[in-house]
Amino acid sequence: MPIHFKQVTIVGVGLIGGSLGMILKQQELADHVIGVGRTIENLELAIKLGAIDRYEQEPKLAMPGTDLVILATPIESYAGHLKSWGGLLTEGAIVSDVGSVKGPLVEQAESLMPPGVHFVGAHPIAGKEKSGAGAASPDLYQNALCLLTPTENTDAEALRKVQEMWEAAGSTVRSIDPFVHDWILGAVSHLPHVAAFALMNALSELQQHTKGDVDLLNFSGGGLRDTTRIAASSPEMWRDIFLWNKDNLIVMIEALEKQLGKMKSFIQQHDEAGIEHEIAKAREARQRLK
Amino acid sequence: MPIHFKQVTIVGVGLIGGSLGMILKQQELADHVIGVGRTIENLELAIKLGAIDRYEQEPKLAMPGTDLVILATPIESYAGHLKSWGGLLTEGAIVSDVGSVKGPLVEQAESLMPPGVHFVGAHPIAGKEKSGAGAASPDLYQNALCLLTPTENTDAEALRKVQEMWEAAGSTVRSIDPFVHDWILGAVSHLPHVAAFALMNALSELQQHTKGDVDLLNFSGGGLRDTTRIAASSPEMWRDIFLWNKDNLIVMIEALEKQLGKMKSFIQQHDEAGIEHEIAKAREARQRLK
Repeated sequence: MPIHFKQVTIVGVGLIGGSLGMILKQQELADHVIGVGRTIENLELAIKLGAIDRYEQEPKLAMPGTDLVILATPIESYAGHLKSWGGLLTEGAIVSDVGSVKGPLVEQAESLMPPGVHFVGAHPIAGKEKSGAGAASPDLYQNALCLLTPTENTDAEALRKVQEMWEAAGSTVRSIDPFVHDWILGAVSHLPHVAAFALMNALSELQQHTKGDVDLLNFSGGGLRDTTRIAASSPEMWRDIFLWNKDNLIVMIEALEKQLGKMKSFIQQHDEAGIEHEIAKAREARQRLK
Repeated sequence: MPIHFKQVTIVGVGLIGGSLGMILKQQELADHVIGVGRTIENLELAIKLGAIDRYEQEPKLAMPGTDLVILATPIESYAGHLKSWGGLLTEGAIVSDVGSVKGPLVEQAESLMPPGVHFVGAHPIAGKEKSGAGAASPDLYQNALCLLTPTENTDAEALRKVQEMWEAAGSTVRSIDPFVHDWILGAVSHLPHVAAFALMNALSELQQHTKGDVDLLNFSGGGLRDTTRIAASSPEMWRDIFLWNKDNLIVMIEALEKQLGKMKSFIQQHDEAGIEHEIAKAREARQRLK
């Protein structure tokens, strides 16, 4: 039997939550989809775009009768949310999320679940340059990877339902330990964001040392644009991700510092073979990335 | 009167030289376009694709009668080339190039010009992920920026002709001091390449510390792909660029190291405001980059 929910409440109807709402409604995976948010304009837009059936600004009003909650708010807000309305959920209900950090947040969420309510950590890896319900699309998760992070406490049936929902969204679903998730995403996502932010800020600093009325950014080609695209991401969101994945990220920034230092010293020493070897290694790894 | 050349010799018929050849021929800016290269297959392909009329493997055979030479070979090879065949050019001939570093190379090229032969440094800023004549296109320079780097020694008439050629190719042409060029390109192009190479190599190092049979690169989204696209660039070419722009690049790598260190210490100290401020600054700068 295909999955079906009576009432899904999406807390945070942005790009991620809104896109999931569209899928739930278009595929009739839920009888009712309720959106919870603070901005009326965005919630009205979400109704108009078919992402939700109705909305509440006060999450407590949405919880009675809900059998699946999707937490799609900043990770820092999870605890406050769960403490506020978790107790209104009834036995058998599932709480899932879409956050970019998992280990400590899954532990926290599990500790805040009322008896009989199941938490399933989820992280759909999908594009996030634009934000808000207006950017949502039912195709967002098509051919994307969605990581689920069950623990020994996770209810098998709840896990299966969340998995089927993301498969219905068109994603390849893979289960992985929440702390392993954070190591992996630290490397392939959080560290590249640190690098992109640092590169943009280095350019601003170099601009200050640029003579005449030359605006460096007027001279950039596609390379800089690609390399720093993710530097336009949300400051609040990435501040929280960096802090919740702090220990991994420190190790990873140090790995990047080490590689930069290596290249710098090869250049300083005019070591042709050393430079070429470093670039060839990087190129080979990059070519494995399809 | 629109510019017209009797015979243009393109030394190095790859993406950059081949695309220029197509433009010269399609717009009839030259009576004859000769390609010089080492690989017969690539040169035959260049003829078939309409990038050149004929080819020589020995550049000396192409120079007599040439009124414009385009050096489109690795920058490290300029001196050897100019010493080998520069003397075969006749008074009034122009030598130009397409290299990514200018200051010391323009000085070198000027010092190697025979009397009456004019050097004009040029750097069309156009995409270079693919290589070879097979990737050439007459649209490559459309809406691109082309930087010319005249000095006090540059012949005004030669400069005008090279400028008109690049304008005919569809580029916006801007003249700039060769050493200022290297500072600017160091910041907006060479440093992002260093960052992308270092990031790929950091990921390879982190892969070694990854437990289980997890392949980090299997978990990446579009962010990593964009950030490291330019890490697939040519090791030989970038080795030479880094070395010819060494002094600027060392300063710039240190600016990036400083920014990385700043972000790392804010994360270590759990300084929410500091992290958010750094990201917001980066985002603001990135949003200025169209």
